[in-house]
Amino acid sequence: MQPINIGIIGFGTVGAGAVEILLNNKDIIRNRVGADVIIRRIADLDIQTDRGISLDKDLLTTDAMKVINDPDIHIVAELMGGTDKAKAYILAAIQNKKHVVTANKALLAEHGNELYQAAEAYQVSLGFEASVGGGIPVLRALREGLSANRIQSIMGILNGTSNYILTRMTQKGLAYDIAVQEAIDLGYAEDPPTLDVDGTDAAHKLAILISIAFGHPVPFGDIYRQGIDQLIPEDIAFAGEFGYCIKLLALSRDLGDRVEARVHPAMVPTDHIMANVNEAYNAIYMEGDFSGPTLYYGLGAGRKATGSAVVSDMIAIARQIRQGVNTLIPPLAHVRSPEPAVTIQPIDEVNTAYYFRFSAVDKPGVLSKISGILGEQGISIASVIQKGRKLLGSVPIVMLTHEAKGSHVNKALTQLNQLDVLTDKTMVIRVEGGEST
Amino acid sequence: MQPINIGIIGFGTVGAGAVEILLNNKDIIRNRVGADVIIRRIADLDIQTDRGISLDKDLLTTDAMKVINDPDIHIVAELMGGTDKAKAYILAAIQNKKHVVTANKALLAEHGNELYQAAEAYQVSLGFEASVGGGIPVLRALREGLSANRIQSIMGILNGTSNYILTRMTQKGLAYDIAVQEAIDLGYAEDPPTLDVDGTDAAHKLAILISIAFGHPVPFGDIYRQGIDQLIPEDIAFAGEFGYCIKLLALSRDLGDRVEARVHPAMVPTDHIMANVNEAYNAIYMEGDFSGPTLYYGLGAGRKATGSAVVSDMIAIARQIRQGVNTLIPPLAHVRSPEPAVTIQPIDEVNTAYYFRFSAVDKPGVLSKISGILGEQGISIASVIQKGRKLLGSVPIVMLTHEAKGSHVNKALTQLNQLDVLTDKTMVIRVEGGEST
Repeated sequence: MQPINIGIIGFGTVGAGAVEILLNNKDIIRNRVGADVIIRRIADLDIQTDRGISLDKDLLTTDAMKVINDPDIHIVAELMGGTDKAKAYILAAIQNKKHVVTANKALLAEHGNELYQAAEAYQVSLGFEASVGGGIPVLRALREGLSANRIQSIMGILNGTSNYILTRMTQKGLAYDIAVQEAIDLGYAEDPPTLDVDGTDAAHKLAILISIAFGHPVPFGDIYRQGIDQLIPEDIAFAGEFGYCIKLLALSRDLGDRVEARVHPAMVPTDHIMANVNEAYNAIYMEGDFSGPTLYYGLGAGRKATGSAVVSDMIAIARQIRQGVNTLIPPLAHVRSPEPAVTIQPIDEVNTAYYFRFSAVDKPGVLSKISGILGEQGISIASVIQKGRKLLGSVPIVMLTHEAKGSHVNKALTQLNQLDVLTDKTMVIRVEGGEST
Repeated sequence: MQPINIGIIGFGTVGAGAVEILLNNKDIIRNRVGADVIIRRIADLDIQTDRGISLDKDLLTTDAMKVINDPDIHIVAELMGGTDKAKAYILAAIQNKKHVVTANKALLAEHGNELYQAAEAYQVSLGFEASVGGGIPVLRALREGLSANRIQSIMGILNGTSNYILTRMTQKGLAYDIAVQEAIDLGYAEDPPTLDVDGTDAAHKLAILISIAFGHPVPFGDIYRQGIDQLIPEDIAFAGEFGYCIKLLALSRDLGDRVEARVHPAMVPTDHIMANVNEAYNAIYMEGDFSGPTLYYGLGAGRKATGSAVVSDMIAIARQIRQGVNTLIPPLAHVRSPEPAVTIQPIDEVNTAYYFRFSAVDKPGVLSKISGILGEQGISIASVIQKGRKLLGSVPIVMLTHEAKGSHVNKALTQLNQLDVLTDKTMVIRVEGGEST
């Protein structure tokens, strides 16, 4: 059997991980493919830095087109990141009838449809397992494992950096800034980690999951995003008293003509399987109409784990090439062409239970004023904690509500924030994953 | 595109689930395959009972050979269970060049190699996703998602019935017998649920996972098995005091020339992701050399979830047929023929930490005698609970040890059980998943 030749564009963290696996696990991969899978060329602007991998220097080039135009290369892996150049390279490779593997979540979330259509038009495979959940084979689970199901909902912890920060705030009571600095010092976060903590990175991955799960691309810009930077350790402690922990969740639900799509901090019952997803781990919880709930958990980032996903795509494509097949499963796992983008339900229309933390003056009658305003909006209170202890100069009043509509909560908050007995903005966190038992 | 025709042998729980999905999600399946997937014939000895599915009566037959010999059928699903007849039917179908899908874990665990070899010889696909973990696409994760990795270890909660029983004992403090009766009453367990609670069912599934993960069949009879029927609620309560819960675990590790393979109750730290796998849920935790730890969670049994796995295999095979491919991935995901069975490490050689519950008379000096014997065998004690309260007429002394060798523990137990200050057999539970934090 002729070897399968790989070309790699981008020799950074993920590229180096993929190269390391292709070299280290060469025998396993040959055994699983039935042919050798060989690195034919690696392009990067920096071909000097030592990546700790022993490699024939002649494989390296600074010219990506030398990968894209090499007639012997079967599979091109775009692992450079960024959107403009990466997109141009992927399209050029597809037009050269190369199969493509990419880990580029921002590119797929924002311009995926163009790439999916090009891959279909040129009848090549496009693998992007590494774009969501790092080493977790969650796209394969959606595209193949749950293929008999209508997917109903998705709940993901999709950003390892923010999950690490929340874990440290939860387990050690650290303040947000301290936990962020620790994550930066340990190399888990960039400095500053803006796209991780503001929900953008998780929203990119959610957009990709939605495309496959529901078969429709979504307008990325319409995904609701709220970050974790306003949380204080006391919110996490109060959540614990109610039987919840706080996670940055990416959520979606199929509503038929629309989808729910949002990323924000949320309270999750401590006995929910998602509650034990800690440190830099990711997890995706998905419900199918027949499978019921399933969950996929693992390392959401890092050279080795992301490399594992990249190489699994190469192996899948190599197995197809060996059988003379170009495209076994279309990019979004649906044989019909991708449909026009589906509309996202406005966040104001989403119903959830809520956690509120009010900062109040220490006077009688405050609770009655707050609950009066909530009652006027039809928001019903499930439980209250008020202990009289001071927090940042005020008395915290903490509430869990029953399910309420986003727009009603916003109306109530506008009125509440005008009350002179409240000394600071009210903290609002949605409750997901059912009630704590 | 010509439709793909399905024949089903066995119209029991799983068969009915698969039929229901093929009918209910017909449009989704057509869309994902690019062709209609049609039920052509269903064989069962009982073709009278109403399965609650509206179906053309002409599809039903009592003669399995009418499925196996139908030249228009592409995929035969063996969903009848049992080993002898099921094996004969599968082999006959393979010899007729039919692709086969099965959910039959006992058959695969005990005679899998014969079936895998037949499928390879006749160049047909053999799908068995439903045999492990019900609706969880864990075999697909191993065969494809983690294909770039050398799998290092497996830790599974593979039997939903025993997990339900343990969950009820843990959350409600129920005695074993009461929890079993409840599981029977709710339809989660057969009466008596012998193969579920004694570890046999989990061992069947472990054998299948090992075959794919390490590429070697294992001698099923050599897998160490210990059931959950000796556990008392107090063991679970003591485990909780140490920061652990008790699960029936199926465990394996690649040792190079041998594998570890064992099923027994084990203590798991409460902050481990496996600790929140409750009720009738299953989960499989696997470590790859590059992916790191990954976990797959969902419903391990039931008509709908198991049906979901069966139909996902049909879809995978149908996608291949559509492209003119017979066998994209061999049964064990390795292109070389299955190798001879690998040896299982004797349980005596396995090292783990341990929980001991001694039933002692209420006299001074008991602890010193016990710890003396443990010390002689080099077993070092990590923590002790002795509270003086009576349990079944004796005083319980509970210990956690550091890692110790199975044979040393057995020697110590032999000596301990001869002590006249111990009034009952000592309860022994291994500790897995690291130390509780």
